[in-house]
Amino acid sequence: MSKKLTSRSEDYSKWYNELVVKADMAENSAVRGCMVIKPYGYAIWEKMQAELDKMFKETGHQNAYFPLFVPKSLFEAEEKNAEGFAKECAIVTHYRLQTDPDRPGKLRVDPDAKLEEELIVRPTSEAIIWNTYRGWIQSYRDLPLLINQWANVVRWEMRTRLFLRTAEFLWQEGHTAHETKAEAIAEAELMNNVYATFAENFMAIPVIQGLKTESERFAGADETYCIEALMQDGKALQAGTSHFLGQNFAKAFDVKFANKEGKQDYVWATSWGVSTRLMGALIMTHSDDHGLVLPPTLAPNQVVIVPIYKSEEELNAINEVANDILKDLRSKNISVKYDNRDTQRPGAKFAQYELQGVPLRIAIGPKDLENGTVEIARRDTLTKDIIPLSNLIEVVDNLLAEIQKALFNKALDFRDAHITEVENFVEFKSVLETKGGFISAHWDGTNETEEKIKELTKATIRCIPLKNKEEAGVCVYTGKPSKARVLFAKAY
Amino acid sequence: MSKKLTSRSEDYSKWYNELVVKADMAENSAVRGCMVIKPYGYAIWEKMQAELDKMFKETGHQNAYFPLFVPKSLFEAEEKNAEGFAKECAIVTHYRLQTDPDRPGKLRVDPDAKLEEELIVRPTSEAIIWNTYRGWIQSYRDLPLLINQWANVVRWEMRTRLFLRTAEFLWQEGHTAHETKAEAIAEAELMNNVYATFAENFMAIPVIQGLKTESERFAGADETYCIEALMQDGKALQAGTSHFLGQNFAKAFDVKFANKEGKQDYVWATSWGVSTRLMGALIMTHSDDHGLVLPPTLAPNQVVIVPIYKSEEELNAINEVANDILKDLRSKNISVKYDNRDTQRPGAKFAQYELQGVPLRIAIGPKDLENGTVEIARRDTLTKDIIPLSNLIEVVDNLLAEIQKALFNKALDFRDAHITEVENFVEFKSVLETKGGFISAHWDGTNETEEKIKELTKATIRCIPLKNKEEAGVCVYTGKPSKARVLFAKAY
Repeated sequence: MSKKLTSRSEDYSKWYNELVVKADMAENSAVRGCMVIKPYGYAIWEKMQAELDKMFKETGHQNAYFPLFVPKSLFEAEEKNAEGFAKECAIVTHYRLQTDPDRPGKLRVDPDAKLEEELIVRPTSEAIIWNTYRGWIQSYRDLPLLINQWANVVRWEMRTRLFLRTAEFLWQEGHTAHETKAEAIAEAELMNNVYATFAENFMAIPVIQGLKTESERFAGADETYCIEALMQDGKALQAGTSHFLGQNFAKAFDVKFANKEGKQDYVWATSWGVSTRLMGALIMTHSDDHGLVLPPTLAPNQVVIVPIYKSEEELNAINEVANDILKDLRSKNISVKYDNRDTQRPGAKFAQYELQGVPLRIAIGPKDLENGTVEIARRDTLTKDIIPLSNLIEVVDNLLAEIQKALFNKALDFRDAHITEVENFVEFKSVLETKGGFISAHWDGTNETEEKIKELTKATIRCIPLKNKEEAGVCVYTGKPSKARVLFAKAY
Repeated sequence: MSKKLTSRSEDYSKWYNELVVKADMAENSAVRGCMVIKPYGYAIWEKMQAELDKMFKETGHQNAYFPLFVPKSLFEAEEKNAEGFAKECAIVTHYRLQTDPDRPGKLRVDPDAKLEEELIVRPTSEAIIWNTYRGWIQSYRDLPLLINQWANVVRWEMRTRLFLRTAEFLWQEGHTAHETKAEAIAEAELMNNVYATFAENFMAIPVIQGLKTESERFAGADETYCIEALMQDGKALQAGTSHFLGQNFAKAFDVKFANKEGKQDYVWATSWGVSTRLMGALIMTHSDDHGLVLPPTLAPNQVVIVPIYKSEEELNAINEVANDILKDLRSKNISVKYDNRDTQRPGAKFAQYELQGVPLRIAIGPKDLENGTVEIARRDTLTKDIIPLSNLIEVVDNLLAEIQKALFNKALDFRDAHITEVENFVEFKSVLETKGGFISAHWDGTNETEEKIKELTKATIRCIPLKNKEEAGVCVYTGKPSKARVLFAKAY
């Protein structure tokens, strides 16, 4: 398979698919819509997990684990939630295979092993968790209940794409219970903030925090907060959501508590999640025609060292220098790999690490040994420099910080250059087709108008930004009055 | 619910079930056979995961993620494996729910959304993984392939018990591919060793490494290595297994590679796993009638500090001392919790931490403030001591190390005292019924005898210990010649 990628300008979607596979991040599996996350991709996901997990624990959350399956009677208890996910459920109906009498050595479903009640493979866990919380919550002393779960979920999507939309995906889902409405709203906002901080500081992805419109809300939520990012092709990507669930699940599952006055009341809830979809956001924010570009925080190897040699003797001398560098970098918690495989030529190694987005590449040849230098190459800018060995560690340290910052700023500049205020529908359509990105426009606040605009342009309201300033105006489509702008975009 | 546990001597099984629930480790869910792992139990599992993950990575393995579902045609490809798991499979047959015309607002399975091919919820992932490996392995340069997965699996067990046997459980499964038979065997042995080291050094659980007999082998394996532990009630528990799979899966999924001579050959395989079952082993190795006893390595909190006070003023003075201790202990990487909740009395706190197995409890009262002391209580021995504040950190540090060692030694003494050599079947049955534990006996090496003994006594051959010395003897049941002893026991 050729390592050369289709360019982004040629076919962005093809570029993405090729990159995911060629950079060894993920591939399609034998199961329709389900992916295999390969070791390199999984190592990046593990870094996201570790950081998020730390942030969740720092904000007082604990992890737990709930069943994969949801009995149908529980699944349907919260009607809006059930309705929202009913069309994409994998359903377990039987619990045994038997020898197939018609195909020797093969198996068939045992018709006698039918479950009394069908089990839904969780598309999200509110139902099974709230059914459990009923036993955990009696009084205000049991609140708040702040729990997170790392899990796989299944949504039977018809059109799937690696990381962005897969039938099975990995995610975390927080599920919290509170005494008051205000506390639950504060929690939903807090976790949306955690997601925004994570996206910006750790993934170097600028995001806009906002509220979803009613039609884009999570099924069963009273309010959905979100972080929205902008991809290089001008399409938006919802990178995380945090829901204020009101008392909907508490009522559906009869979860009451005795408040401080001794009166029974339904508890208030939130749920919030991010998924392996973030891998897609990562790729489409930073990468280029040469392959993946990784912020140093997420790179399984932040630095790779490649020896350039012609003889065993030269290699031995380089090995010595390289081992010192390894030791020094590791002592500074910089992850580094020394690739002295003799089955690959330096050019092939360079190409591989470029494709896989290793932030810094150090090459050491005989000339460098003579001069006490190394060659250092930045993946993000594709620039090279000759550096004296004596201050290599400092240079690496500074460069990694600089790359992290540069990636964020580059993405921020791009994003900000792609938020366009428009005042009428002609302009709306024209900007959407020529430039893409977020369109900041007035909207009359009705589902009907939102639906109509979507039908005509494929653009949806990504969010009502939290930082919106009030501004009187008229709806870009109906001309009716509006108090503030919302952000439209085509979206993943 | 009373916090008092049934005693172990009264009813060991009841004691176990109560302990798991009352110590907030896990509980049954609304889904038959599936458990909820509660935050306290999950925090212990996270510590196991972190240590195992580190050990896997240190031995060159990488994590990846494969689909939850296995299409039936892949599932049945390796016949022995398929046959072994066919009777306990959850099977997905449909992918959509629809409104139930007979029950307004409720749902039913949409009969038009039947899958073309049924999907098995993975009971283990050899099939889906080996089907994927076919695309990853072309030449000896791609080998060894050393991959691990953290995942949930489902085995539709009819009789379930929290942690020990549940329909869904969490585990890790390693799946490796090698050029030669010798390398694959070495890998299977290495990972069994890793498990033994983990069990003994980290969980303080002594284990015997051995080989399974043919009838107890993993379905599809040529050889199964295992670690076997002994529980307090004299029953054995298989704590981990590592399988040499020969070329069975490579042949079933046509995974060939070009060797160094350029000839095509099937690759050699291993798989190995441990699961949340280890939580059961942990509980039944160390705990007592007062509740959980945790080795310090696995305790979510190694130390808890409880203030004893009558006035706000006393509490303030204690807070000050406690905060200094917290800081000092944390700087030594000792996890510590300060419980100054005013909703609970000290007695209730003591009972809770005893039940939850916190290794060390520090109590600070007004007398201690005067004297510059604290009271320190060990959970494993239930002993208390008064310690001068000035060398508290050193004492805590030493005690934690001592507890870890003491728990292992206590378990080892118990285990060693419960390995009994027997020479005939009368003795065999008598020891099994009166004393329990491992019975070291000669066996003629046939499935038939093994089966007969199981039928008569419920004891199975737990393993053929790797450290067996050759010793001529006669089978305890048939009197036929035998070259070495094997270990029998009743088992979980």
